[in-house]
Amino acid sequence: MFNNILIIGLGLIGGSILQGIIDNRLVNHLYAVDFDKSIIDNAISEKLIQGGDDDLLALAKTGVLKDCECIIIAVPAFAVKNILSQIKTAIDDKLLPNDIIISDTASTKGNILKDAFDIFGELPPNLVLAHPIAGAEKSGFMARNGELFKAHKLIICPHDFNDKQAVDKIATLWQSLGASVDFMPCDKHDEVLALTSHLPHLLSYALTYQLAKDEESLNIFRYAGGGFRDFSRISASSPIMWHDIFLANKQAVLKGLENYQAILDELKNDILNDNSDDLLKTFEIAKNAREHFGRLLVEKEKLKNL
Amino acid sequence: MFNNILIIGLGLIGGSILQGIIDNRLVNHLYAVDFDKSIIDNAISEKLIQGGDDDLLALAKTGVLKDCECIIIAVPAFAVKNILSQIKTAIDDKLLPNDIIISDTASTKGNILKDAFDIFGELPPNLVLAHPIAGAEKSGFMARNGELFKAHKLIICPHDFNDKQAVDKIATLWQSLGASVDFMPCDKHDEVLALTSHLPHLLSYALTYQLAKDEESLNIFRYAGGGFRDFSRISASSPIMWHDIFLANKQAVLKGLENYQAILDELKNDILNDNSDDLLKTFEIAKNAREHFGRLLVEKEKLKNL
Repeated sequence: MFNNILIIGLGLIGGSILQGIIDNRLVNHLYAVDFDKSIIDNAISEKLIQGGDDDLLALAKTGVLKDCECIIIAVPAFAVKNILSQIKTAIDDKLLPNDIIISDTASTKGNILKDAFDIFGELPPNLVLAHPIAGAEKSGFMARNGELFKAHKLIICPHDFNDKQAVDKIATLWQSLGASVDFMPCDKHDEVLALTSHLPHLLSYALTYQLAKDEESLNIFRYAGGGFRDFSRISASSPIMWHDIFLANKQAVLKGLENYQAILDELKNDILNDNSDDLLKTFEIAKNAREHFGRLLVEKEKLKNL
Repeated sequence: MFNNILIIGLGLIGGSILQGIIDNRLVNHLYAVDFDKSIIDNAISEKLIQGGDDDLLALAKTGVLKDCECIIIAVPAFAVKNILSQIKTAIDDKLLPNDIIISDTASTKGNILKDAFDIFGELPPNLVLAHPIAGAEKSGFMARNGELFKAHKLIICPHDFNDKQAVDKIATLWQSLGASVDFMPCDKHDEVLALTSHLPHLLSYALTYQLAKDEESLNIFRYAGGGFRDFSRISASSPIMWHDIFLANKQAVLKGLENYQAILDELKNDILNDNSDDLLKTFEIAKNAREHFGRLLVEKEKLKNL
């Protein structure tokens, strides 16, 4: 598939890609960049990678990336733009091949497409946007797991000027890591993620904030049961990371939020006016959908254990 | 404490109270009423109760309840009014003692106080409203657990005309079952529960409904990750039960919902205008509060295992 790959960012996702590539012997030479130099040094001494640095351009200047065929950017969303800019510089300086395939793992896509256009002056044919729908409670390189993506969805968002071969190669790479690859337009991806991931986080933050504002909050939490526990778990997520995601996916998040607010208004009206039939119908539709989702989760668990 | 107790409703909560009373040998004679006669027959044949029926008045007419000292009503919220009405009839017919202590386990209180006033023409001094903050994923008598209430909160909502001795006796009963008893005015109870339990369910129903309405819903769910899984779990709850709770606690739910909508509007505005500082501040407050709640949960688990 590839002879050389460079992974930028050795957190949970980048680390798990690295480990999966090694476990499945997919690539001959692996290089990595991470802002934490000790992780790079450690990965080199453990012979996980053949080279690396905390600075992409410094690594490129050593010449080891001249034949690199693929870069996977696995850094937080807000840091992607800067990395793309460094890649542009390295290509201009002939430190990276002109036709190198560039891919990512970010959870928002429209903003990255825009950044790439701003930096390259076009949508690079070899830029393949990808998003693995996977994660774990722990983060960081030490939590890496070569099977993290097994039986999970990987969404590729092809753009209008994409090179088909480049897209196919990235799809094959992820399939080799066990992921199930789907294709989806960039704006649809951002809309789906806004509803299934970003909006739940925003709603959970909002409710926990509402409780925390109450002067008797310390007491109120003592009475909260399992419903609140599950609902609020994600409001302990990283404020900085989610701040970045909401702003990066602003348009889709706001659209989803406005639709949600309209549903809340309907429910408020139904409760106010004792519209029992409407309330029951809404809850039944939700319950059936959640049970359908529950069955999908069970199927996924079965696939993982194959 | 009590010589005779009658439990009405042998679901998870009523069954667990029964089992806890037996395990701790708190009462000499136990009676029960449940609309499912087979559960009563089973409980009698297993010698868990000394008598029972699927009809309160029929049981009362046998005369076995003439010396009964306490009734615990553990039926769904919407069914409490009818039970209170039957109790009134039985007292009027001298089939139940005039000074019998009547308690409940319902998760909303204002509506029950109103029902009691409508039926008795006053707030009965021996009516002690109680709400155990406990539950389990399974429901029904077979899922009963004598330790269900251990290290959980039990809220008693005394009313203005309550007999202090009756309140003390119900508090002692729940402490004997392992619960930690707190006292709270009725309206405060309903407000706290609206925020910590009822509102999360409404918000979860609303989001799952929003996804289910989308024509591509079957596909969308395939991309939903852990955040949505946790957030939406409670939207698989019983539509009828939650319909009843939202209407029973209408005033507090609507007040909580309106405050929540105001917070969503602020967040929408912050995202729209890139108000990074405000967004981060809100998320930080929520994260800290959730972590505080997480520590409370850990403490509770420790208490359970003592």
